[in-house]
Amino acid sequence: MIAQSGGPTVAINASLAGIISQSIKQETFTKIYGAINGIEGVLNEKFIDLSIKFMDHNDKIQLLKNSPAMFLGSCRYKLSDPTIDKLEYQRVFKIFAKLNISTFYYIGGNDSMDTVAKLSQYAKENNLDTIIVGIPKTIDNDLCFTDHTPGFGSAAKYIATTMLEIAYDTFIYNLHSVTIVEIMGRNAGWLTAAAALARNKYYKAPHLIYLPEVVFSMEQFIQDIKKVMLVEKNVIIAVSEGIRGKDRGYISAMGAEKDQFGHSQLSGTGKYLEQKVGEGIGCKVRSIELNVLQRSAAHIASLTDINESYLLGKKAVSMLGTDLNGKMLTLERTGNSPYCINIKAICSADVANKEKKVPSDWINQEGNDVTENMISYLKPLIEGEIDLQYVGGIPKYLPVNYWDEV
Amino acid sequence: MIAQSGGPTVAINASLAGIISQSIKQETFTKIYGAINGIEGVLNEKFIDLSIKFMDHNDKIQLLKNSPAMFLGSCRYKLSDPTIDKLEYQRVFKIFAKLNISTFYYIGGNDSMDTVAKLSQYAKENNLDTIIVGIPKTIDNDLCFTDHTPGFGSAAKYIATTMLEIAYDTFIYNLHSVTIVEIMGRNAGWLTAAAALARNKYYKAPHLIYLPEVVFSMEQFIQDIKKVMLVEKNVIIAVSEGIRGKDRGYISAMGAEKDQFGHSQLSGTGKYLEQKVGEGIGCKVRSIELNVLQRSAAHIASLTDINESYLLGKKAVSMLGTDLNGKMLTLERTGNSPYCINIKAICSADVANKEKKVPSDWINQEGNDVTENMISYLKPLIEGEIDLQYVGGIPKYLPVNYWDEV
Repeated sequence: MIAQSGGPTVAINASLAGIISQSIKQETFTKIYGAINGIEGVLNEKFIDLSIKFMDHNDKIQLLKNSPAMFLGSCRYKLSDPTIDKLEYQRVFKIFAKLNISTFYYIGGNDSMDTVAKLSQYAKENNLDTIIVGIPKTIDNDLCFTDHTPGFGSAAKYIATTMLEIAYDTFIYNLHSVTIVEIMGRNAGWLTAAAALARNKYYKAPHLIYLPEVVFSMEQFIQDIKKVMLVEKNVIIAVSEGIRGKDRGYISAMGAEKDQFGHSQLSGTGKYLEQKVGEGIGCKVRSIELNVLQRSAAHIASLTDINESYLLGKKAVSMLGTDLNGKMLTLERTGNSPYCINIKAICSADVANKEKKVPSDWINQEGNDVTENMISYLKPLIEGEIDLQYVGGIPKYLPVNYWDEV
Repeated sequence: MIAQSGGPTVAINASLAGIISQSIKQETFTKIYGAINGIEGVLNEKFIDLSIKFMDHNDKIQLLKNSPAMFLGSCRYKLSDPTIDKLEYQRVFKIFAKLNISTFYYIGGNDSMDTVAKLSQYAKENNLDTIIVGIPKTIDNDLCFTDHTPGFGSAAKYIATTMLEIAYDTFIYNLHSVTIVEIMGRNAGWLTAAAALARNKYYKAPHLIYLPEVVFSMEQFIQDIKKVMLVEKNVIIAVSEGIRGKDRGYISAMGAEKDQFGHSQLSGTGKYLEQKVGEGIGCKVRSIELNVLQRSAAHIASLTDINESYLLGKKAVSMLGTDLNGKMLTLERTGNSPYCINIKAICSADVANKEKKVPSDWINQEGNDVTENMISYLKPLIEGEIDLQYVGGIPKYLPVNYWDEV
């Protein structure tokens, strides 16, 4: 049985496709179930038969590999503490027993690995023999013990490409301007750092990069912009939605604090900074929020990312002999030139509910840019373009919510 | 001499590439100047020699064809009324005479056609023999007397693709939600209408479409959403930034009216509607502003659009014998299956400072969707994908602001 959980990425279906493809190839399982809407689908017994849907349909597997979001739907559901309430666990394993589930794959992020850890622990303690395996995904790249996470490379490629195109949009007028681009990432700055990949031998945009790992100072921010403006007509800034001030409160919330009249929900980090730059510098200012396209723009997915995610799915089947129970698969980078990865596995409990931040020596001393270490780390992850089918001028993706329920 | 003006599009460089390519092929001109930053560049004598740059460099012409924004930079400059102030006109034609300019091409939108009309009128009245030719571009598709405008098809393709990917991002959770996507277009709804192209046999998203041509009613809007919600779990709405209420004031400004405390600039149309839907319906609501990517996302340009824009540039040279003076080239659609266009020319004064709105019979009776006429009109314009080069995982575009000044 396979399920997907957490926020969408462009690569999460590639891992699903990898599991299905390898299972069919190895004839590992007699049947492959998909649970609809994550662990909730298991508890509610909402399943589809993936073996019927994909057996002898390699074209569909390829389409699945390149389709965004989650074919099986998602949930945000935290299992209860098993020392307090065992009912959910009993229900899950009763259903597993009824359907004769030998292996349960859960594709997700930090929270999903909590589910993997809890289920496998419960199985161990109760001598139940369903193997529970975690497969990582998150655009945030904040999982520990893996070089990077599936979905991150594609989000990074979208951000870098978009940042380059925003720069082109900015350069055309002969006047001073500041453009603030707000990028996802509440606690970790990996996605915002990826904006640096837009730079080339002609353009230094984004000229400034602010990550949540650095304490944000509005005075310094305005000074930084003024300094760049001495040499650049158009200043382009990448800023994480999660930047925080000295008091560790979100900058975006600072506007809310000042507004007593219930309009706080109108203000994002970028919009708030736009206002402040307008006041502090007085040139043309605009802010752009990249929004959900960062995690759903499959049309500009990274081939490296999609292939790695697919491989993780395949390995989750082919490595079953090596005691994968309770483990999450990881990507280990063995080289950068040529870029090379190995797939390993780690105890999911070690990953669950933790966040990997950007190391401080990958951020420059001024706290307004990333260093060469970060660039070298990021570069291989956005390499390559997928071969997408277009119908009527728009990409062809496998539809979701259109499975027949078993 | 060639110059570009107004807001950027993904296709405006294709027209420039077309002029250069055809001029070189036909040996029409001994020299091709590019004026930097539109008519301002002419007045300030900021030129580059495009013949040197592109002669025997077909690879560079191809790269230019696929590069976003404006290679020559832009301006927003309105020439004075020649009956009041002739100084600027004297200066322009003195410079043309000095450089022996036989033809001046101006690539732009409504305002740029005003420049074309004024310059050609002045030339006629003063027996000056520089031919002034307008080449249309605008993502807004609001130029009269042309079936559509270069740049619109690519913007429409970006909007349709993005809308589809937003829909995928939305479908994954098993809960009710409303997603409001704000699309460019202050006065004309063409771009917002293009969101309808995201629909396929599985998905009806966007379920509701609101154009500036229809008087917007907040009560009706909330009723419309409630009605869709009876059959759809996730309601996705395309809304033009320019929707207006009965008093013809922008909806986005309604929030500003209610907020006495200087926070009006924080609120866009989408954000304002998000708040209203939150209050009126109370489910999960989010708004997404597509922003400048609509006009700069060259990585998902429409091949039809790029090829037509290129062809317009070529025709602007090859048709020179047919009295193009003071004219703007137009696209005339001669068929839809197969889709076919002719290139014609019309007096630029007829186009200048006018806007083409969406016809009322292309909008449904309820005023919350477009009709089949609109879909048939739009479909061919987003067909085809360009063959883009990628370097290091991001698109390769010709750099701007890096010409040596002549």
